[in-house]
Amino acid sequence: MFITFEGLDGSGKTTQFQRAVIWLRGRGQDILTVREPGGTRISDQIREVLHNRTYTEMTARAELLLYAASRAQLVSERIQPHLEAGGVVLCDRFSDSTMAYQGYARGLDLGFLDTLIQFATQGVRPDLTLYLDVEPAEGVRRRQQGQGELTRLDVEKIDFHTKVREGYRALIAKEPARWVIINASKSIDDVAIQVRTALETRLK
Amino acid sequence: MFITFEGLDGSGKTTQFQRAVIWLRGRGQDILTVREPGGTRISDQIREVLHNRTYTEMTARAELLLYAASRAQLVSERIQPHLEAGGVVLCDRFSDSTMAYQGYARGLDLGFLDTLIQFATQGVRPDLTLYLDVEPAEGVRRRQQGQGELTRLDVEKIDFHTKVREGYRALIAKEPARWVIINASKSIDDVAIQVRTALETRLK
Repeated sequence: MFITFEGLDGSGKTTQFQRAVIWLRGRGQDILTVREPGGTRISDQIREVLHNRTYTEMTARAELLLYAASRAQLVSERIQPHLEAGGVVLCDRFSDSTMAYQGYARGLDLGFLDTLIQFATQGVRPDLTLYLDVEPAEGVRRRQQGQGELTRLDVEKIDFHTKVREGYRALIAKEPARWVIINASKSIDDVAIQVRTALETRLK
Repeated sequence: MFITFEGLDGSGKTTQFQRAVIWLRGRGQDILTVREPGGTRISDQIREVLHNRTYTEMTARAELLLYAASRAQLVSERIQPHLEAGGVVLCDRFSDSTMAYQGYARGLDLGFLDTLIQFATQGVRPDLTLYLDVEPAEGVRRRQQGQGELTRLDVEKIDFHTKVREGYRALIAKEPARWVIINASKSIDDVAIQVRTALETRLK
């Protein structure tokens, strides 16, 4: 079972991810948790390049390929072995982020992105994706007030985050059975209940 | 005019590249010289990941995508602007290295590699490629005795370098007009004359 969390920055995704992990571990499940980009020593070093806020000259193509490189290493080194051993994998962002951010928001060719993701992941796809939905303006506001590490993406304008959200909606429309939409504008506890309900339903 | 140097490690490629640069600059040509992976601050940081000899777990896919990311940034930030301004670009390794090493030697899908290279380079291709041809065993011997920085690729067996060479030969067979084969088993001075002759012929 491969479960991913997706959403805009500021959607509370990481907080909810951590809560879900604690809850699932409490149920005795053998869970591997990873976040993208990162999760292996090579991927973590790639993450440093991607999140360096002084690298304003980074092109959309280089950015895309770095995310794909980090993912290729992560899938092969950690995700695939854990899934093959029958474990549950929870990933904070995965291929859908690439489609939403680099495809729909930055305008890179969606067909090429599909091919690239297929190559990097060797066809490993999430069974369930929780989408934490929040208004772009609310996401930006939370990031500015929050404690999360600020990255290169935090300098993007509201228009960019609006396109990312439209991208997620397009992805959900294509594969509705895989996604659960969580209303992330609610309180942390309320959102946690929605997440738990979604997980309980699918993990039965 | 975009000129690239290709060949096995230990072919004397970098030495000859540096000599060619000095000679061309002496002729008053406006030359940009770059080496792959690297050539921009982002690409240089990617180079550090690629050349870290302790990263023995790096998968062929992650490696390929890191080379492509480094190249995408280099083409966009430096090569393309210089070519558009009418300058000459000399590059120590380029897309052909990806085809020979990651494609022919590591066995990744050649069709996908073509698509990926096209994406990363936005269609920028060399006008002339000098291939410094050396026997794989001779290349390995020179690397072991030489002063060049040893990288992850230096731990590869002779069989790997033999496949790389076969890859280069296949690439040359497909596009013979673009390539000049240099006999790199000769002395440094002799090889330098072959290189100079090839450059003089094409730069007229």
